[in-house]
Amino acid sequence: MIGIDVGGANLKVVDDEGVHIHYCPLWEKAPITALLERYVTDREEPVAVVMSGELADCFDNKMQGVAFIVDAVREAFPRARFYGTDAAFHRDAVPQLAAANWLASADCLRTNHPRAVLLDIGSTTADIIPLARFPELPGLTDLARLQKGFLLYTGMLRTNIATLLQSVELGGVRTPVSTEYFATSADAHLVLGNITPGQYTCDTPDHREKTRAASLRRLARVVCADLEEIGEDGAVQIAWQFWEKQRNMVCDAVRNCAAACSAAEIIVAGIGAPLFTRELGGVDLARELGPAADALPAFAVREIALRDRVFSR
Amino acid sequence: MIGIDVGGANLKVVDDEGVHIHYCPLWEKAPITALLERYVTDREEPVAVVMSGELADCFDNKMQGVAFIVDAVREAFPRARFYGTDAAFHRDAVPQLAAANWLASADCLRTNHPRAVLLDIGSTTADIIPLARFPELPGLTDLARLQKGFLLYTGMLRTNIATLLQSVELGGVRTPVSTEYFATSADAHLVLGNITPGQYTCDTPDHREKTRAASLRRLARVVCADLEEIGEDGAVQIAWQFWEKQRNMVCDAVRNCAAACSAAEIIVAGIGAPLFTRELGGVDLARELGPAADALPAFAVREIALRDRVFSR
Repeated sequence: MIGIDVGGANLKVVDDEGVHIHYCPLWEKAPITALLERYVTDREEPVAVVMSGELADCFDNKMQGVAFIVDAVREAFPRARFYGTDAAFHRDAVPQLAAANWLASADCLRTNHPRAVLLDIGSTTADIIPLARFPELPGLTDLARLQKGFLLYTGMLRTNIATLLQSVELGGVRTPVSTEYFATSADAHLVLGNITPGQYTCDTPDHREKTRAASLRRLARVVCADLEEIGEDGAVQIAWQFWEKQRNMVCDAVRNCAAACSAAEIIVAGIGAPLFTRELGGVDLARELGPAADALPAFAVREIALRDRVFSR
Repeated sequence: MIGIDVGGANLKVVDDEGVHIHYCPLWEKAPITALLERYVTDREEPVAVVMSGELADCFDNKMQGVAFIVDAVREAFPRARFYGTDAAFHRDAVPQLAAANWLASADCLRTNHPRAVLLDIGSTTADIIPLARFPELPGLTDLARLQKGFLLYTGMLRTNIATLLQSVELGGVRTPVSTEYFATSADAHLVLGNITPGQYTCDTPDHREKTRAASLRRLARVVCADLEEIGEDGAVQIAWQFWEKQRNMVCDAVRNCAAACSAAEIIVAGIGAPLFTRELGGVDLARELGPAADALPAFAVREIALRDRVFSR
């Protein structure tokens, strides 16, 4: 069986070979079906799918996005079943399929971690899920999760620096930032050594290379400067202040959630796991799941389909 | 004589026919020379130029951007002269040419408005310039102007909603926003009736149409919702809260500047002039300059070149 998570930016596949993450931006008409064809050995293979890509703005509305994704997956895998925010699997496109990937993760992990708070911090967002409260979770839309602090729109790669920072301190002087898309969280994390160039899997804001030097230049542009004007130190300062704000935002939300549900442990998945496990004193799910911890919903939806014998009926 | 302002997003030309504004994004390799060729009647025509486009991230650094723009303009107009932050004209590419457009406006208007604060609020930024302090202005880089509150990176069209708002209130519930580029200030202002579709001259974030309905849909996506989920009222709320924050940011900065230099009047230019003149109780420069008030640096550099007889030497 194969597990698939169709995000707006990334498509993740978990099969017997392992975990496969593809940068597949739907708003650029990236070809889902063609990508998935690579994984077809048996056209009748059972495939469990979850999605969050239906919000991409190439679609008029979520239902159109859901239908598009369902069709694209079924073209490669006619027997695909899709997991929804009703914690059930569906053959066809229904509204519940929208943004259900986080629920698959929760539904899967609650078995072994019934009193944990799960933090899954990826390229663009952080899901914060109280597993002890699983019965209350089905039906929650992204809007509701934003309001409850279960969804934070901040990630390790694709967050525009200017959406989190309104100003930085440079040499003690408050410096408002440019609101252009000049630098991204991937630039900050690369410069600080939190990710490697290989983990910088999204496009760079200026379509230039993914090196420390290029990231420093992008960061300098955030204050309308050349790197020569503010120096490497100045650019690193910008990266550091971004990270501090991001770290505080995520850790505060996790701790609030943990306190509210008297969580026994914090478990962490996603490409930000090593970093945030240190900050939170939590457990890195990579220990338990290996590379699947970087594609948790894709892994989880497969596990749930097996657990609930979805394809035996 | 022709006056030209080469911005990163817009190229503006002022000649005897009038004022011409072209959406000409340099980061998309928009063809400056080809555009300017349309204005060539006499290849030896005197042309005064100012720029701010050198910061566009298609260039390695500002000097490369300056050189590119100088070459591109000179290909159409060999006799072009370029105004710099040293308040002087140059034949060749020099570092001072970077981001000098606001200084041209100040240098021109200080004659008739020696004790004014000038607010020029365009598509992407707001320049706030104390004309009484003109002697202190040459040499200021964009970084310095950001720090002094003379440059605010907020505009009527191209500001990503998520760079100004970290959350909105929907039905009394605090709702953090998505940090994607889903909606822009043009969407907010169109929905609120502050601009017409014709004034929405930049690309839309989702490459869809420039109508109220489409803008409402884009605004709903800012909280990860379809329009049906939050309703037109909800989307208008998002527009309104953006506008409030932008208005306060700009007006506070203008009033602070006016107080600090005991300004006698506030004069306003740019596409945001009607809106902000009302808010500030200032004078709309369109009364004095007509359409040139929407292309102030291009108009100003031409006036200065005439005033200082740059082409007579």
